[in-house]
This record gives sequence, structure tokens and C-alpha cells, in this order.
Amino acid sequence: MKKKMNQYLSNLKIESSGEIISFRKYPTDYTLTTHTKEECEDLLKENLENLSCLQDKFYANKRYSLLIVLQGMDAAGKDGIISHVMRGMNPEGIKVSGFKTPSSTELSHDYFWRHYKELPARGEIGIFNRSHYENVLITKVHPEMILNENIPYVQDLGDINDRFWKKRYRQIRKFEQNLIENGTIILKFYLHLSKQEQKKRFLERIENPDKNWKFSMADISERGYWSDYQCAYEHAVSETSTKKAPWFIIPADNKWFARFAVGTIITRHIEDLKLEYPVLSKEQVTELEQMKSYLQAEK
Amino acid sequence: MKKKMNQYLSNLKIESSGEIISFRKYPTDYTLTTHTKEECEDLLKENLENLSCLQDKFYANKRYSLLIVLQGMDAAGKDGIISHVMRGMNPEGIKVSGFKTPSSTELSHDYFWRHYKELPARGEIGIFNRSHYENVLITKVHPEMILNENIPYVQDLGDINDRFWKKRYRQIRKFEQNLIENGTIILKFYLHLSKQEQKKRFLERIENPDKNWKFSMADISERGYWSDYQCAYEHAVSETSTKKAPWFIIPADNKWFARFAVGTIITRHIEDLKLEYPVLSKEQVTELEQMKSYLQAEK
Repeated sequence: MKKKMNQYLSNLKIESSGEIISFRKYPTDYTLTTHTKEECEDLLKENLENLSCLQDKFYANKRYSLLIVLQGMDAAGKDGIISHVMRGMNPEGIKVSGFKTPSSTELSHDYFWRHYKELPARGEIGIFNRSHYENVLITKVHPEMILNENIPYVQDLGDINDRFWKKRYRQIRKFEQNLIENGTIILKFYLHLSKQEQKKRFLERIENPDKNWKFSMADISERGYWSDYQCAYEHAVSETSTKKAPWFIIPADNKWFARFAVGTIITRHIEDLKLEYPVLSKEQVTELEQMKSYLQAEK
Repeated sequence: MKKKMNQYLSNLKIESSGEIISFRKYPTDYTLTTHTKEECEDLLKENLENLSCLQDKFYANKRYSLLIVLQGMDAAGKDGIISHVMRGMNPEGIKVSGFKTPSSTELSHDYFWRHYKELPARGEIGIFNRSHYENVLITKVHPEMILNENIPYVQDLGDINDRFWKKRYRQIRKFEQNLIENGTIILKFYLHLSKQEQKKRFLERIENPDKNWKFSMADISERGYWSDYQCAYEHAVSETSTKKAPWFIIPADNKWFARFAVGTIITRHIEDLKLEYPVLSKEQVTELEQMKSYLQAEK
């Protein structure tokens, strides 16, 4: 039973095959029957307790950084993942960064700049709630946005062609490769939501006075570009899923499953590092002994 | 019974009287007998659940920022407070910033600069693990550090006199006043530890392989300046505790009590804001209704 779930979670990882994947082959709802909602919730709870200890060692080692990229359509559950999966962790080693419309200062730099500044330090876990990927997602759906970037070789919309996007995917792969070679672990999650479920969640938000204040016309209008976004995501995920910086397509119509899947995948990846607390050198042990004697001798 | 605890916690707040307080009058251990350790732990748990809801509204309002300043000697429990009191909160609205030895770039700016950049945004809770106060604490104990700052009117150690420190306290008060006038709430906690308890905790750290890697000779050598630090803290706290940016002297020899006190004081202060989720205007309600009809009409 456990094996089946492991296999199921493994299958959510996109292997880079050179082909553009089709989301039609990826269900938006949980299709395994071996585990119920309650079982997944219990397992997640266990995993999160484990994650909390793992994080302590990860922080102590100060050797790796972990970058978690969360992407998905509006209401796909990005904030819920942060709130439910990351909540039990020590805030001292966590850094959450959201990226909204870039400011004019940010636009006067290349598109990686504002993301670079938010990358997690060694020992830290950084969560990007939306990320550098928006530069091949929202801007692919609305290419006129690219013109605001003032890129020397982009004069008009005609320059924003297939070659342009291929170049950007390559730049993102290189950017991530550089991070990885210098100690960053990268896990990328696409929360795969159905159009039907988004509608349901939008209607719930509108009805709920604790949430309706954050709902805006923009959410509705972007929904109008649903298939363009799906296509942009299919390309982005296919072109940038690498062995070391994989994308996971998380069925997101069930919030509890998405949280379980993301929490479990993160836990497994930190577990695999097999980190222990730093071990002292002989010299350090001697020094500690000296400090101990010094303290004990204090009157 | 509850009244007594409330009174006890209120008394931890330093009222600005113009006089320099003496730490001798402030016990480092919990002296109330009405609540046991277990009762405080239960109450803290309740408060933290409450705090988690309050944080959600605080974040939704995006009107205030909350800055929590944690100061205290090594091993006073600053990291433990962050890990235990802040852990249950939504990491999306929390920002923890530690301040170590300033870099040469940081030293080439005034001493507020690196702290300013880390201040919490509206809706956020920022925790300073050590803070701008180190500029009147460690530098007061080791005034030669000030010379690295290249301040125009400070040529030698002779210039770092009482007048210099009075000026810094005033600068800090003004800095905080500006923040407050623009929507930041400031709570400052001094974790008041006895020299005896520090020794005990240092020895425990040396023995514990999960912790001894982070112990260094510097910790021991700063302990040698214990009374200088106490004096620097007495002055800093007395000179900068204001009605709107108060210091709390938290008895810190019992970790459980310090966590309870800090958690409870923070919770009360956010409670006092009586925040609710943003209420929509008539126009916004109409717009929401339109969006709802639009969604429902979708085929």
C-alpha cells in the first residue's frame, strides 16, 4: 500500500524527455484508491513532525539551500500550501517571497534580478509564491508586457516569437543550474487545478466575508485566458524540468491531497540528504573541553 | 488568579521615568505562585491558537506592521522564543532577521541602514533576533568598534563619551517614533537571564552534540564582560522605553515562562487592535455580485 503511494508520488515528477507534455494526460484530482483523505492527513502530520527535525539539521549544516517554487492558476492553493505545510517549521530558517507586478526599478533590471535577491541563504528554505517562471507564463499570455522590459533586441511584438521563448527557457535552465552547482536544491510544484474547480473556489470566495475582500475583477479576466495559460504551463514545465530541478504536477482539485503530496515530496528530498549535526574536529573537541573546565572553575 | 497574572505581566513593562533602572530590582526567575509551569504551557497553547487567527486578520488588513525586538545575553533564549512562539504562525506573514557582525558595505552606511531594509511590510510581523540596539550594547562594551563606522565627528575613543551615547539613544527613539507614526507597532523584549543560568546553559550546550557545534570561544569571552553588558542594557532599556515602543524585561531563567510571557504579550497587543477582515464598500459588493453572475452564467 505504501509502495503504491510512493509510486504514485514519483509519477508526479516530470522527466525531461524533450517532448512537450499534454496536461490532458494528468488528472487534476487524486486517482489512487489505496489511501483515504484521513490517512493522507495523518501521514502528512507525521511527515511534518519529521520535517521539523530535518529542518533543524538542514539549518545547522548551513551547506545547502532549498528553493521551493509554487506555481498554479489563481485559487490553485498556493497560499494554503504555505500556511498548512510550512506552518510547523521554525520561522527562523524559512523565507517566503511573493512576486507581484514588477516595479519600475525592477523592470529596469533583467527579469532574474528581483528573484535573485530573494533566494534562500545556506541553511534556509525559501518559498517562491509565484516566481521567475511568471516571465514565461503571464508574459507569454500577455506578450505586450515584455515590451516594458526594454530588452535591446526586442523592438516590437514580432520579436517575441518562438525563438524568444526558447531562449528564455534556456536562460531559466542555466540560472537554475548555476544555483544547483553552488548548493541550492530546487523543487518546483505546479498545482494542477481544473477550470471547474477554480469556478467553485471563486464562488466560495465571493460568498465568504473572510476572503471576498481579496477577490478582484483581474481574477475573473485572467480566467478568460485559461487555455492560453495551460499551454504556457505545458511548455514551461516541459522545457525546464531537469533531473536536478524537476517539476511536479500536483493534482490540486483536492486541497488535502495537494498538501499531502507537496509536504511529503519536500520531506523525502531533505531526508535523502542524510544530514547530521556538524561533527566537531579533534581540535574543536579539545577547545570545548577547555571551555568547560574554564566555566567549571569559575567561582 | 487570572488578574494576578495580568498584573504580573503588566509589571514587566518598563515605564519611561527618566531614571536609569537597576536590574537588581528585576528577578530573572518567575516569582508568581498562582500559575504552574503546566498551566502556563496550556495558556500559551491557547494564546498561540488565538494568535494564529489574529495574524490572519492582521495580514488581511495590511495597515499595521509589527516589529518584535528580541535582545538578551547569549543563551538567554532568543532562538527558542522564535522557534516555539512563532512556529504556529503562517510563514507567509512572518519575517525573521538576525544581525551578526556588520559587513564592510553595511559599515559604510549609518547603523540604521541594514536594519531598515529588514523592517516588516504592512500586514507583516518582523522579528529582529538582535537588532539596532546592538549599536548601544556590544559597541558600548567594546567602543573601539564604533571607530569602524567612520562617523565624521568621531575621531578617537575620546569622542565616544556620554554625550555620544545620549545622542544615540535619542536617535533610536526618533527612528522608532517615525516608524510608529507610519503604522509600525513596536514591542521590545529583553530576556533577563542570570549569570548562573547562563553558565548552566553553556555547560549543557557543550555536552549536547546537537548543539555544541555552534558554541564558540567568543561566547565565553563575552561572558567576561557580564557586568558591562548589564550596565549597557540598563541604560539602553531606560533611555529608549517609551509609551508607544515599550521594553519588557522578561524573567528568562525559566524558558517556559519566558515563552509564555512573550507569546501572551504579543497576542494581547494584536488583540487590542480589534482588527476585522476588510469590509467591502457598496460598489465592491455590487462588483462581486456581477462577478458571481458572470461565473454562474458560464457554460
